[in-house]
Amino acid sequence: MTGSTPALFTADDYRARMERAGRAAADAGLAGLLVAPGPDLVWLTGYTPTAITERLTLLVLVPGRDPVLVVPTLEAADAGHAPGAPALTLRDWTDGTDPYAVAAALLDRSGRFGVSDNAWAMHLLGLQRTLPGTSYAALTEALPMLRAVKDAAELELLAAAGAAADAAFEDIRTVRFGGRRESEVAADLAGLLRAHGHEVVDFTIVASGPNGADPHHEAGDRIIKDGDMVVLDFGGLRGGYGSDTSRTVHVGEPTDEERRVHDTVREAQEAGFRAVRPGVPCQEVDRAARAVIEKAGFGAYFIHRTGHGIGVTTHEPPYMIEGERQPLVPGMCFSVEPGIYLPGRFGVRIEDIVTVTEEGGRRLNDTVRELVVVE
Amino acid sequence: MTGSTPALFTADDYRARMERAGRAAADAGLAGLLVAPGPDLVWLTGYTPTAITERLTLLVLVPGRDPVLVVPTLEAADAGHAPGAPALTLRDWTDGTDPYAVAAALLDRSGRFGVSDNAWAMHLLGLQRTLPGTSYAALTEALPMLRAVKDAAELELLAAAGAAADAAFEDIRTVRFGGRRESEVAADLAGLLRAHGHEVVDFTIVASGPNGADPHHEAGDRIIKDGDMVVLDFGGLRGGYGSDTSRTVHVGEPTDEERRVHDTVREAQEAGFRAVRPGVPCQEVDRAARAVIEKAGFGAYFIHRTGHGIGVTTHEPPYMIEGERQPLVPGMCFSVEPGIYLPGRFGVRIEDIVTVTEEGGRRLNDTVRELVVVE
Repeated sequence: MTGSTPALFTADDYRARMERAGRAAADAGLAGLLVAPGPDLVWLTGYTPTAITERLTLLVLVPGRDPVLVVPTLEAADAGHAPGAPALTLRDWTDGTDPYAVAAALLDRSGRFGVSDNAWAMHLLGLQRTLPGTSYAALTEALPMLRAVKDAAELELLAAAGAAADAAFEDIRTVRFGGRRESEVAADLAGLLRAHGHEVVDFTIVASGPNGADPHHEAGDRIIKDGDMVVLDFGGLRGGYGSDTSRTVHVGEPTDEERRVHDTVREAQEAGFRAVRPGVPCQEVDRAARAVIEKAGFGAYFIHRTGHGIGVTTHEPPYMIEGERQPLVPGMCFSVEPGIYLPGRFGVRIEDIVTVTEEGGRRLNDTVRELVVVE
Repeated sequence: MTGSTPALFTADDYRARMERAGRAAADAGLAGLLVAPGPDLVWLTGYTPTAITERLTLLVLVPGRDPVLVVPTLEAADAGHAPGAPALTLRDWTDGTDPYAVAAALLDRSGRFGVSDNAWAMHLLGLQRTLPGTSYAALTEALPMLRAVKDAAELELLAAAGAAADAAFEDIRTVRFGGRRESEVAADLAGLLRAHGHEVVDFTIVASGPNGADPHHEAGDRIIKDGDMVVLDFGGLRGGYGSDTSRTVHVGEPTDEERRVHDTVREAQEAGFRAVRPGVPCQEVDRAARAVIEKAGFGAYFIHRTGHGIGVTTHEPPYMIEGERQPLVPGMCFSVEPGIYLPGRFGVRIEDIVTVTEEGGRRLNDTVRELVVVE
């Protein structure tokens, strides 16, 4: 992914986000936030460098001071065109000079800072070496909820991305599966996501038969056969915001056992969805879905958490996982995606993006969750 | 980029690389190497996870011990299919457990470790917290030359990637430039790289007229006009190894000044190339190219280093930059890419990948470096 996010938000929007982030940092006792290229920087400034490289690009947010973007001289012109650029100062550094000294001059020498999860270790080590009195916390640990609660414009974009993914599913269920390679169906899916407006396709998992028992199998050379269960899990970015949905389809008539496993996952997904309402701890969504699968005797075969947040990236807090006591807040968006994986045989996963409303949950994916038979 | 690298290397090749890396770590006084998903992990194991996420994947190389790949349970099956998997042990961890404890159990509690430049800061912080007695150095600072000297098979792949990029340039110079948007020519270039065998296109810079004065301008909406200089800089991966070349073309007849600037860059590129021979410090390549540009009076307009290494990624050590005293070694591969950037007017850059031989340098790009006139 290169270039800037479509200019859906204005410099004022980005200014407001940076101010909110600065206040959140101060409230958490941090001396500032250090934001690397990636989803945090996109969300705060709309800026995506041409490439993420060994050259330091770092947004320095210190509460009460104007935001500064430290940027390689080479990239300064591009950065200046980002939609959030009017809300910040650029400070460029040239090849052969020390970028950590430039960043350090902006920082309290004994402060504790939140740093983007995906900042390069090399850059964190450079800062730790330059400012040995500082300490650091990963941004999602220090401020896990910074990007978690979406505003109305963001919800609209996430809903549009979800609707586009649903439309791609409605199209893909009409194509031929039997006799074709997983990778061919995956290419169809990628084309459909683009046709329905995605500018980035992040993943198109097509996991047939025994491959479905591997939750992160992508799509391979296996030829899909009559009688196969096929897990489809696909998503990307549309208008800068993420989609991520899963449905499991069957080539020809399923057996009673296949139906029973699929029904169990569907009930688990429904139970997870029904657990969503303001104030409920995230882990309760996981527990609700897991209880259904455990009761049906498949507990050992549900080997991942129930969900993850989504926004300008397809994996972010909040996580629907045992131990996560963060209460749900209206505007949060995340996946509810239980699965059952029977090694060597098949897998089933059903996934919707859900947002928290005042009343409960609202699905941003809503295609049929019953087992769809394909050709 | 997802999936594994094409299986060009065997488990024995990866085993030999891991052993070499372990020995290099020991020689540098390190207790081990911690390798995150990205080019280091691809080079050492052939493994590329489906996505690089918040879930820890980490290759632990401790000198004298068998390599261990710490991997999320979700990804274990995929990792097990990597071409280097037979040469290592997988240790998986499940959502809800502490991956840093798993990694820490493999490490000397007071050791100093090299960590991949691009490892996530979040993971480095997790290790620092779990093992407060350890210390860390960025891998390219601790072992800058680990991947820098290519073997014969790697050189063959880099030469093939370079030849494919050259073929793409020979094709692109025949298309129409005038009257079309930069982004359209860039799309042509991307298609040509793929047609010539690239599985990944990393960048296709088309910077016309004043945009050419911004070295990292990508390709935008600007309509290319008669009389424009146009910088083309493009590359990606073919067979898992990188290409990266630049040529500057002119739409219609150039002016004398444009010819003079282009000639200066061409002479600088030639001077940089001629400085390449075993034992010469990297900075001498930069100095040789820069001297030509300074002598011509354009020193202030050459605003980046002269080159960077290339291998399984398109930016890696060694860097041809003032201050880099590392001597050149046969088998090293890097770009020689001086440029002149006249703000608001135009830019010129000429770039070849060069490899060091016993006798001097050999270009892996070799299309015409004289100013090409396009339509």
